[in-house]
Amino acid sequence: MRIFRYLPLLLLVFWVEGSFGSEQNPKISQRIRRYRTANEYKILKEFFDLLAIPNVSADRKNVRRNAELISAMMEKRGIDSEVLETAANGNPVVYGEIHAPDAENTLLFYVHYDGQPVAPSRWTDSQPFTPVIRKGKLDPVTGVPKPVLLSPELFPLPDDWRIYARSASDDKAPIIALLSAVDALRSEGIPLKNHIKFIFEGEEEAGSVHLEKFLAEHREKLAADMIFLCDGPTYFSGSPTLFFGVRGITSIRLTVFGANVSLHSGHYGNWAPNPVWQLVKLLATMRDNHGRVLIDGFYDTTLPLSATEISALKAVPSYDEKLKKQYGFASHEGGERSLIEAIQQPSLNINGLAGGWVGDQIRTIIPSTATAAIDIRLAKGNDPTDMVQKVVRHIEKQGYHVIHADPDPQTRLAHARLIKVDLPEKGYRASRTPMDHPIAQAVVKTLRRHCDRDVVLLPSLGGSLPIYMFENTLKIPTIGIPIVNFDNNQHQADENLRLGQLWNGIETFAAIFLMDGD
Amino acid sequence: MRIFRYLPLLLLVFWVEGSFGSEQNPKISQRIRRYRTANEYKILKEFFDLLAIPNVSADRKNVRRNAELISAMMEKRGIDSEVLETAANGNPVVYGEIHAPDAENTLLFYVHYDGQPVAPSRWTDSQPFTPVIRKGKLDPVTGVPKPVLLSPELFPLPDDWRIYARSASDDKAPIIALLSAVDALRSEGIPLKNHIKFIFEGEEEAGSVHLEKFLAEHREKLAADMIFLCDGPTYFSGSPTLFFGVRGITSIRLTVFGANVSLHSGHYGNWAPNPVWQLVKLLATMRDNHGRVLIDGFYDTTLPLSATEISALKAVPSYDEKLKKQYGFASHEGGERSLIEAIQQPSLNINGLAGGWVGDQIRTIIPSTATAAIDIRLAKGNDPTDMVQKVVRHIEKQGYHVIHADPDPQTRLAHARLIKVDLPEKGYRASRTPMDHPIAQAVVKTLRRHCDRDVVLLPSLGGSLPIYMFENTLKIPTIGIPIVNFDNNQHQADENLRLGQLWNGIETFAAIFLMDGD
Repeated sequence: MRIFRYLPLLLLVFWVEGSFGSEQNPKISQRIRRYRTANEYKILKEFFDLLAIPNVSADRKNVRRNAELISAMMEKRGIDSEVLETAANGNPVVYGEIHAPDAENTLLFYVHYDGQPVAPSRWTDSQPFTPVIRKGKLDPVTGVPKPVLLSPELFPLPDDWRIYARSASDDKAPIIALLSAVDALRSEGIPLKNHIKFIFEGEEEAGSVHLEKFLAEHREKLAADMIFLCDGPTYFSGSPTLFFGVRGITSIRLTVFGANVSLHSGHYGNWAPNPVWQLVKLLATMRDNHGRVLIDGFYDTTLPLSATEISALKAVPSYDEKLKKQYGFASHEGGERSLIEAIQQPSLNINGLAGGWVGDQIRTIIPSTATAAIDIRLAKGNDPTDMVQKVVRHIEKQGYHVIHADPDPQTRLAHARLIKVDLPEKGYRASRTPMDHPIAQAVVKTLRRHCDRDVVLLPSLGGSLPIYMFENTLKIPTIGIPIVNFDNNQHQADENLRLGQLWNGIETFAAIFLMDGD
Repeated sequence: MRIFRYLPLLLLVFWVEGSFGSEQNPKISQRIRRYRTANEYKILKEFFDLLAIPNVSADRKNVRRNAELISAMMEKRGIDSEVLETAANGNPVVYGEIHAPDAENTLLFYVHYDGQPVAPSRWTDSQPFTPVIRKGKLDPVTGVPKPVLLSPELFPLPDDWRIYARSASDDKAPIIALLSAVDALRSEGIPLKNHIKFIFEGEEEAGSVHLEKFLAEHREKLAADMIFLCDGPTYFSGSPTLFFGVRGITSIRLTVFGANVSLHSGHYGNWAPNPVWQLVKLLATMRDNHGRVLIDGFYDTTLPLSATEISALKAVPSYDEKLKKQYGFASHEGGERSLIEAIQQPSLNINGLAGGWVGDQIRTIIPSTATAAIDIRLAKGNDPTDMVQKVVRHIEKQGYHVIHADPDPQTRLAHARLIKVDLPEKGYRASRTPMDHPIAQAVVKTLRRHCDRDVVLLPSLGGSLPIYMFENTLKIPTIGIPIVNFDNNQHQADENLRLGQLWNGIETFAAIFLMDGD
């Protein structure tokens, strides 16, 4: 993108635009809305056809059917499209390209069309691949509101109604929103200001195992000035949201060993070592009661936020109290720190802990092992290997002998405190495009110019996306532009999309298509 | 029993007996052994027929078939027997009685004939109710030695061979040993010196829910001078073992609440409260790194051992190093304290801990709850309710709001630290017959007189048995006399009995039958 040269001018325009804007003419978003209101059934019909094709990453045959339909959806619109193979055992990437006459810049949009595995029995009165409408948010206890199939009689649909289906949010929603945005601009006679490229991945939920290689192999085809990652939820308020970075992630699994079999708690209790007690005592040394990690150097490598980023954080409307009420807890970790501040830091989180039995299977034993699964979210500056090593060194300091495979009898007898550390297959670093970057500013500007809703700017998302793959291969600045509601149940049963989010998403993408460098 | 009067004489005899004994004539145990050696196939054939009838407590129809067979086994020997009902929904008690001419005292033997539930798929190459012989102890990894069915060609059987079946040890072994001891004495022409009564319970593994009421209702029929509880394993050495007490037991289950659903660890990690971290920090306050319980007053109510009991403990041969090697751990809890010392104290043991997922189901979430199941073994003097209350008070001191049912939304929002405490349905106290008691001394004497093996005397078993039920109802001193090997896999797959233990058990019971007060 060629906007770097115009930075001072850009900043001027930014403020001028912000102060009086375009009250005289309807904003672009209002024109897009007019189109959408008139075409809701058509949009949802196309979306439901896409949602009806099973897309669990491992179901390669059906995943390919998704790819072919998406390609056909683009061809139908005259968008050049290809189904590109990633690997002999991989799912394809669907590529699309729109040439905009006279445009200088190219914007590349990334979405994934595969979905998480499903457990149909856990869904409430509907099935993952039979998309349905509910007249509001489902209460999983009452099952109300009941699902209905899509039909023209339902329209117009209030914004609070929801679509329930696997990938309704994660991540097929941006596909339909992007293509509908193209339709809307064309219908309104508004020319694109940028060349547009789409890549729709089919293996994101399987760890994007072939993506980095794919990007490297197609570097020329994918050349662009900016990448937009269309995944994840918007800020809690539902407002158009940009995130300029993501946390990285790594993980570690700890197994402490006691006796080589479970022992009777009466005959051996408080003499034979109990690995659950040992693990509890070990983990307790890792955090204080307020959630601060006590591992040496855990926070040392985190890069500070810039003044712009700190200002941006302060400008984000707080949703903390609403979240606490919605999720039913009285107090958050980290003292006065807000959620949005907390996710700028690395975290050490127990995903699960297990040893012995606690339910119907309960028995009065001393378990033979205890296991904790931990994920570490990484802030900008943290190296995944280094962070894991810090945890391991902490464990060693507590007197543990660390091994990486199940112990043999000699090893068991040689060490009073014995722990197996399963290291992650891979972790990856956080990514962050500085908010001061001219490109970042240009994106903010275009959204503010063309949309009539507040825009939320997040220096980093709390979650993790492999943005580093784009950075490593394409060397193109990347910004996240999510559109779906935060309470979409992604990765779980009853995944859903609030309709208002889809509608806003169409407006947001249309605005981005009109981004320019002046 | 009428021996109290003869205490001084008894003690004298005790020491004299110990110093020269009966080298001239074979000891009783040797005569019993001669009978057994000649009748092993007959003994095991009868035992295997009993083991072949499923006896899971809840399988009432088959449990009753066990009762009928046991009654028939007694009738076949001319022992008066009855199948006595316990309750409309209960399993029967099988009662038996042998009148000994000229005997003054009555000895009551308790055994249970029901067994723990089975998971046949976890058994190694055999089925729980198809008893088999293995030529040694099973290695669960290799499945060696392989099981063979009982047949006359196998005999004679080395002592180290084992029987694999549900209840081979727990607790059908004492039934066959008691009845075989009767047979052996008769065959050798040795008259019983005591009236003998048997009660064989069918609900022990279901919590002996009707036993106390049954005992109270049959107090006259069950009148005796001494009760022998034939359950549990011998000391590790396999020697004839007497235990003069048991620990009591109670339990508690703790559930800490975080958000009302699992949350994404990226979007909420280290801001939303993680109940696993909370539970870990809470539990860590309950014990030091050496296993000492830090709950106020936890050890205060434990009664001290008498000088006799302390001496007895010192006389027990240590098996600690062998156990550590067998069970594969380098260091025990409690510093210098031996196992046999440790089990004289109350214990606080985590049976299980669970929150989130750690295995194939692992997911990067903040779990919504974390649960720990804890059992508390009670020493003499500890009250079950008081001990649980001490734990609860400790939890409250850590800032928790304690509830006893799942929280409603208001409760969730009102308390930063919220824990559900499931109290036990019931717990029971420890029991201990003082080793100084003349009856206790008489039992020791008879074993030393008639058996040619060392006898191990334990002030208390580490495990728990509801001896209090006998104390509350029958008011008769009770001593435990286990016969099975400690490594019998009771309550688990591949339950087994080492043959030598069964043979020794027959000798031990025959000796007890000959106990007298002079």
